[in-house]
Amino acid sequence: MGFLEKLNGAVKRNQSLVCVGLDPDPQRLPAHLKGGADSVQAFLRETIHATRDLVCCYKLNFAFYGALGAAGWNTLREGMQAIPDDLPTILDFKAGDIGNTAEHYARMAYDRLNVDATTVNPLMGRDAVEPFLNYTDRCAFLLCLTSNPGSADFQRLATEEDVLYKVLAKKAVVWSAIGPCGLVVGATHPNELRVIRELAPDLPFLIPGVNTQGGDAKSVVQNGMGHSSGGILVNASRSILYASGGRDFADAARRATEALRKALNQAVEPVSESRLRG
Amino acid sequence: MGFLEKLNGAVKRNQSLVCVGLDPDPQRLPAHLKGGADSVQAFLRETIHATRDLVCCYKLNFAFYGALGAAGWNTLREGMQAIPDDLPTILDFKAGDIGNTAEHYARMAYDRLNVDATTVNPLMGRDAVEPFLNYTDRCAFLLCLTSNPGSADFQRLATEEDVLYKVLAKKAVVWSAIGPCGLVVGATHPNELRVIRELAPDLPFLIPGVNTQGGDAKSVVQNGMGHSSGGILVNASRSILYASGGRDFADAARRATEALRKALNQAVEPVSESRLRG
Repeated sequence: MGFLEKLNGAVKRNQSLVCVGLDPDPQRLPAHLKGGADSVQAFLRETIHATRDLVCCYKLNFAFYGALGAAGWNTLREGMQAIPDDLPTILDFKAGDIGNTAEHYARMAYDRLNVDATTVNPLMGRDAVEPFLNYTDRCAFLLCLTSNPGSADFQRLATEEDVLYKVLAKKAVVWSAIGPCGLVVGATHPNELRVIRELAPDLPFLIPGVNTQGGDAKSVVQNGMGHSSGGILVNASRSILYASGGRDFADAARRATEALRKALNQAVEPVSESRLRG
Repeated sequence: MGFLEKLNGAVKRNQSLVCVGLDPDPQRLPAHLKGGADSVQAFLRETIHATRDLVCCYKLNFAFYGALGAAGWNTLREGMQAIPDDLPTILDFKAGDIGNTAEHYARMAYDRLNVDATTVNPLMGRDAVEPFLNYTDRCAFLLCLTSNPGSADFQRLATEEDVLYKVLAKKAVVWSAIGPCGLVVGATHPNELRVIRELAPDLPFLIPGVNTQGGDAKSVVQNGMGHSSGGILVNASRSILYASGGRDFADAARRATEALRKALNQAVEPVSESRLRG
């Protein structure tokens, strides 16, 4: 089953547009888990168990596993195994390298880790992106306008064609003819989100930056979802994982996920809501 | 010892501007090594042993280790251990993520793998780069104008400030006040290399794209080295690693490294040569 089918199934089944980012930071684990050898794995397992009926997707950012050293790869694999098969997964590693090398990154994500989707940094151009598009049952989310302050440094430069993030969005639409792709657009830019949605009405958007980074759920739905068939995956990581630093962390993660799910669903307009319900 | 000291020591000791890219592709190993469980490690060990007195640096591209799955991390670590302590190492992973996440990538490279330098994709801006600059005894090479065909898609766009690759170069010069950084400029763009060197006279340049990708050693020295104090690291990977597919692969790698070293040294002008000799 392809990524988009799997995603749409999960959206309808769990009535959710929430993607939970599984980004374990050893410094921020609940106190009772700190220090134990399997503490990160236990943290992931319990968080997944507590949220799996409330989400449409899980995203795993490679940085947090790479920073664990040799244990990181197995931790990532075990996290993946705790995720039900009918929920899609995204490896967030923002890969971008020359064609020959990009093939190896695609192999790492799709053949070794068997994720359903990836994030890709498009700065190096088409040959850096194409090896990901060639996996036609997966999906590559290309960076467009990221949620962080530094997005203003280059992504907002006016170019001979258009503002850079719009050039990136338009190129992704062209490249989506090769294979499935989407865009990463930060929730912190509601007005630009609307503009990008107009440029790419049919692409799925991965939208980080709600909660901790300041993005607002309602404006994400209003500007990102629009009236198109393109879906939105609204990612929250820290605000869910670290909702409580105590023994109730999994319950707190569930409550935080439920709150975001509810805020998103309330913002979904009737016409879109009927689509959500299938 | 900081990256630049270590690099300068190696340049003088080995009279070399060559960086060998250790990018093991299981499909391209010599026939007698294919299939063995430790074949990639043996390949790396023998290649390093055969070239270590002819190079100024080794670069390890993470994609090739990630694509090995669970074994990849240890293979990378064992490759690192085969490199003499007085030769600097670069983890080529083109990392780029929001500040909080970039800290974890920096930790992976500098604390876990203990490399001397990294490559960083600057598309996400300052907060994606800064965590790397904060390691003041290391060096972050920021993508500027990459060697591949896709570099034309975005890096060559004219922007309100200047062509994007020049904007990236100028920003790196500004950010080098925070901590050590350099630029990645492909050998396949000799004219632009000269322009970028004028913009960033004091930054070290990591220059991929000679040999297999078509770049020319002489023009790299003439355009990249200039008359500044900024060094160049000229990377070759496939043309060295796969110089022979037979049992003589390590000897062939040595000959290919020696040929590139000689071509670069012959192109070095007398004034720069005296600098090279210290």
